Amino acid sequence: MDHVMADITGQYIKWYQQATGVEMNPADLMGKPEDLAFPEPRLIREFLHTPGFFLTAPVIPGSQSVIRELNQLYEVFIVSAAMEFPQSLSEKYTWLLKHFPFIHWQQIIFCGSKKAVAGDYMIDDHVKNLTHFKGEKLLFTATHNINMHDTGYRRVNNWEEIKDLFLLKNVSYN
Amino acid sequence: MDHVMADITGQYIKWYQQATGVEMNPADLMGKPEDLAFPEPRLIREFLHTPGFFLTAPVIPGSQSVIRELNQLYEVFIVSAAMEFPQSLSEKYTWLLKHFPFIHWQQIIFCGSKKAVAGDYMIDDHVKNLTHFKGEKLLFTATHNINMHDTGYRRVNNWEEIKDLFLLKNVSYN
Repeated sequence: MDHVMADITGQYIKWYQQATGVEMNPADLMGKPEDLAFPEPRLIREFLHTPGFFLTAPVIPGSQSVIRELNQLYEVFIVSAAMEFPQSLSEKYTWLLKHFPFIHWQQIIFCGSKKAVAGDYMIDDHVKNLTHFKGEKLLFTATHNINMHDTGYRRVNNWEEIKDLFLLKNVSYN
Repeated sequence: MDHVMADITGQYIKWYQQATGVEMNPADLMGKPEDLAFPEPRLIREFLHTPGFFLTAPVIPGSQSVIRELNQLYEVFIVSAAMEFPQSLSEKYTWLLKHFPFIHWQQIIFCGSKKAVAGDYMIDDHVKNLTHFKGEKLLFTATHNINMHDTGYRRVNNWEEIKDLFLLKNVSYN
C-alpha cells in the first residue's frame, strides 16, 4: 500500500510543512531513506504514529483505475506491512474502503513481515519485502529506492507501466 | 487465532448467557456451525461486531506455553482472518500483546482470506482455511468441526498434541 497505492511521501511533505513551515522538494528526498531525507527525522516517525496520517494519505495516480482492471483478470491481494503502527490498522482499512471500494475484505492482508505472503507476483517499493517472495518480484519506484540499481528485481516506475505489463497485449506477462 | 488460541466458543456461551439468561452446554454445540448452534443466531452475529468481544476472549488452555516453546524453534506466524470484522483488528492486536507478549509484531498477520498465506505447517479450525495451503495442514478440534471426518487433514485435539508433534523427540515432525 504505502508508496505504491498511498502517496506517503507526498503526505510526509505536506505534514512536514504544516509542522515546521519548511516545504521540502521531492527532488531533495531522492535516494534517501524515508525518514532521514528530512532535516528532522523525529517528526517523520511521529507522523507515523499520529491518528489521521494514514487515513488522509493521497492516492498514487493511476493505482485506482489499474487495480480496478487488474481485479477483473487477476486474484489481487492488497498487502500492507501495517503491524508496526497499530493505530494504522483501522485507518488503512477505512482508506481502502474509501479509495478502492471494489476491493473485497477477503483481499486485504495486514502483516508485520511479508515473509509468509505467497503469490505469483509481488509489487513493492522495498527490497526487504521482495527478498523472501517466491514469485516474480517488481520494485515500484519511490524516492527512497530511486538510486537502487542491480537489485535483481524488475523496476516499475508507475501504474502505467504495470498496466502495460499485466493488461496490454503482446507484453511480458500477458 | 479464533478457536485455536482464543476460546471464542467459551466467549459465545458467556455473552449469550449474559444477553438471554440461557446457559448453553458445550455438548449442545458439538458438530454445529458456530452461530447456528445457538437458538438465536442473530445474537452471535451481533457479538462479532460488538466492541470488547474479541478483546476479552479467554485463552485456549496450553496455547501460551506451547507457542512460547514453538517460538524458540520455529518461525511462528499468528494468522487471523480478522478483516470481516474491522473493529476486531485493534482488539486482536491488543489481545495478542496481552496474552502472547513474546510474539513480535512482525509475526502477526490479519487477513481476509488465508489463500495468500504460505508456510510449512498451518494449524486451523476451519477446513476452508486449510484447503488452499501448500504445506502440511492440521485441523484443530473445535465444537463446530468435531464431526468432520475424512477431511484429509491430520486432526489435533489440543495444544498438548501440538507439543507432542512439534516439540517432543521421536515423533512425527521432529
